Amino acid sequence: MSEQIKNRIEDANRQAVERVLRSRPILVDIKPAIEVLSGMKKNSIFHAGPPIEWKRMSGPLRGAIVATMIFEQLVESWDEAVKLIESGQIEFSPNHDHDAVGPMAGVISPSMPVLVVKNEKFGNTCFGRLVEQKVQFGVFDEDAVQILKFWAKTLGPALGKAIRYSKGIDLKSLMARALHMGDELHNRPVAGTALFASIITPYLIEVLDREELVKVTKFFSTNDIFFLCMSMAACKTIMNAARDIEYSTLVIAMARNGTDFGIKVSGLGNEWFIGPAQMIEGRYFPGYKHGDANPDIGDSAITETAGIGAFALANSPAILSLIGGSAEDAIKYTKQMREITMTLNDTFSIPILDFQGTATGIDIRKVVKTGILPVIDTAMAHKQAGIGMIGAGVVRPPLEAFKQALYAFGRKYRL
Amino acid sequence: MSEQIKNRIEDANRQAVERVLRSRPILVDIKPAIEVLSGMKKNSIFHAGPPIEWKRMSGPLRGAIVATMIFEQLVESWDEAVKLIESGQIEFSPNHDHDAVGPMAGVISPSMPVLVVKNEKFGNTCFGRLVEQKVQFGVFDEDAVQILKFWAKTLGPALGKAIRYSKGIDLKSLMARALHMGDELHNRPVAGTALFASIITPYLIEVLDREELVKVTKFFSTNDIFFLCMSMAACKTIMNAARDIEYSTLVIAMARNGTDFGIKVSGLGNEWFIGPAQMIEGRYFPGYKHGDANPDIGDSAITETAGIGAFALANSPAILSLIGGSAEDAIKYTKQMREITMTLNDTFSIPILDFQGTATGIDIRKVVKTGILPVIDTAMAHKQAGIGMIGAGVVRPPLEAFKQALYAFGRKYRL
Repeated sequence: MSEQIKNRIEDANRQAVERVLRSRPILVDIKPAIEVLSGMKKNSIFHAGPPIEWKRMSGPLRGAIVATMIFEQLVESWDEAVKLIESGQIEFSPNHDHDAVGPMAGVISPSMPVLVVKNEKFGNTCFGRLVEQKVQFGVFDEDAVQILKFWAKTLGPALGKAIRYSKGIDLKSLMARALHMGDELHNRPVAGTALFASIITPYLIEVLDREELVKVTKFFSTNDIFFLCMSMAACKTIMNAARDIEYSTLVIAMARNGTDFGIKVSGLGNEWFIGPAQMIEGRYFPGYKHGDANPDIGDSAITETAGIGAFALANSPAILSLIGGSAEDAIKYTKQMREITMTLNDTFSIPILDFQGTATGIDIRKVVKTGILPVIDTAMAHKQAGIGMIGAGVVRPPLEAFKQALYAFGRKYRL
Repeated sequence: MSEQIKNRIEDANRQAVERVLRSRPILVDIKPAIEVLSGMKKNSIFHAGPPIEWKRMSGPLRGAIVATMIFEQLVESWDEAVKLIESGQIEFSPNHDHDAVGPMAGVISPSMPVLVVKNEKFGNTCFGRLVEQKVQFGVFDEDAVQILKFWAKTLGPALGKAIRYSKGIDLKSLMARALHMGDELHNRPVAGTALFASIITPYLIEVLDREELVKVTKFFSTNDIFFLCMSMAACKTIMNAARDIEYSTLVIAMARNGTDFGIKVSGLGNEWFIGPAQMIEGRYFPGYKHGDANPDIGDSAITETAGIGAFALANSPAILSLIGGSAEDAIKYTKQMREITMTLNDTFSIPILDFQGTATGIDIRKVVKTGILPVIDTAMAHKQAGIGMIGAGVVRPPLEAFKQALYAFGRKYRL
């Protein structure tokens, strides 16, 4: 490779990562998906990870789709849903192809409220599905569907009103604070949830009646993982600001649909580079074992893509009771990620490492050269639809995806 | 010392520390001090640390007393206050001698609302002054006095109503969670504040009108050190459960009035053992320097006495930006405290040390034998009344206090 090309790549990456660092994601609204997501139609179902057709989908993704179709009153049962899908009347598409992200199965349907996050610095807007603990893990019973109804009827409109009244919540500064409070903002967002609740409550009080207010504040005090959806939408907004920079080797998305793992790269447009979703090493809830787990699933690896999640694991040793491993491992992972990234974050920092920034901006060249794969901490879903979360742990993506991307990069730029 | 006496001491300490570990402090109310503090009269002023007369008091303690007398409408100015005090009409007494604690100068007066914390396991009740950032550092201007008025008129009654309605808030489990969220619960109680706000808000909504509600919830979202007062009152309640156990060498209180440092010991009744308050090593706010600081002040070392605060500093590396030092120091302090304590806590733990418990239960014998002094992290007040907080850092108490206690122990038990 000529020195000139090398410099061109370095310049592009500097520019890309500068946009990552300068991004300022602000939560500005919550709206029904169909009102805000480009390309969403009445028969659309968006999902986590790269594109996939029904017959290759994993159990938890199928379960989540069926639950969501019941929520949308398109069908009343699993069998009716499968029939409708197989007749070709549902159009599937990845969240990431519509500037959106969703946790685990990550299924977004037209009536579902989604977070609207605007990048105050660069003007781009992204969207996030809310988080719960059933549908996104593939559960499709009545209780699970009920949560989506609560979102659409109560939580979404109420929070939307308060957020609009607040003129926007600065997610980046909130995330920086939460990272100093034991969160890594992927599997442990509890400080983020408490901080967000504390910030939004005065606005909720101003705009809601007492009955709504009690429901919404009780929701926050009993759903301490809720902030994950805000962290994910903020990270997507940050990374989308760095897309489409010619010659940049920056990874702008990593996502899994439960069957495949895929990445997108700044200098390579909208193309997905794919390998098989991997198995998670971690801890199982009592009653479950290794063979029960589905491969890695979810758009939540957008947090690692943006330099938090497992890339900030040293901030969050408390999470080890959930995912397993030692505090030493957590620090080791965090430091190791510096070998495959472009910079240290100037906003997200790690007090236990004397306030050094988190490793930020994965470079496909460094991943392929070192063979060091990004570390992702994640929840585990049962491989069968209808069962749900069975544990949590740590996973590395397949090297193939990064190799394919690098090969495509060489081809596109004739290297 | 005979084997028999040694065993008797070991048994007593086992019993004492067992009571520390089993204690269950529940926040049950907020009431005006005069209604709940034993021995408080209309002309009483209680304060932090061991007993001290006006003429030996430090600047910040004097300033806080004057502010509080203005709040009580006993006087209108510094000069009037001094005159009234010098005429002998004000009775001073240490908070600790009335089962109470207060941060920094820690001044409690009759109309001031205090936290009421009941030990669900052992039945004892203790009390805590609320926390602010002016009066307790010796500021006595109108703005400072205004905060005390807001407490008495709005915050105390409102929180009292909500706490009674809640049937009590379990402080110990809340503290255990906060310790996993970057708090050490002395100088960094921000997760505690956010968690408390999240727990109390639904009750506030039920009992307050909208105007009060907005005031109180805004207070929480802008006063992130507030939980310190709850942490202190909980620790006092925990440690008081272990008082008056014959032959026990457990330290049940460490406190400073800005001039003297004192301890109380379980097997030695109500007696104070005293040495000079020490200077703090740490970081100054811009514009202040070493000679400006007052010696160590406040009842807040009750947190270290109960095994948190600087004894849990490894949980709270984010605090180092305030107090100085490296993450390595924080871990070193935390481990070193095991050498002078009786056990590892079974509720308060340290994820970064693979979830080991915090060193808990200071033994005067071990302090004197090893020469290792308890580590306390603390704020610094300016030595002159009226100026306020000028920094924060780490301090060790004087060895004399522990030596005197051990000497008194030998005398009392004829060793």
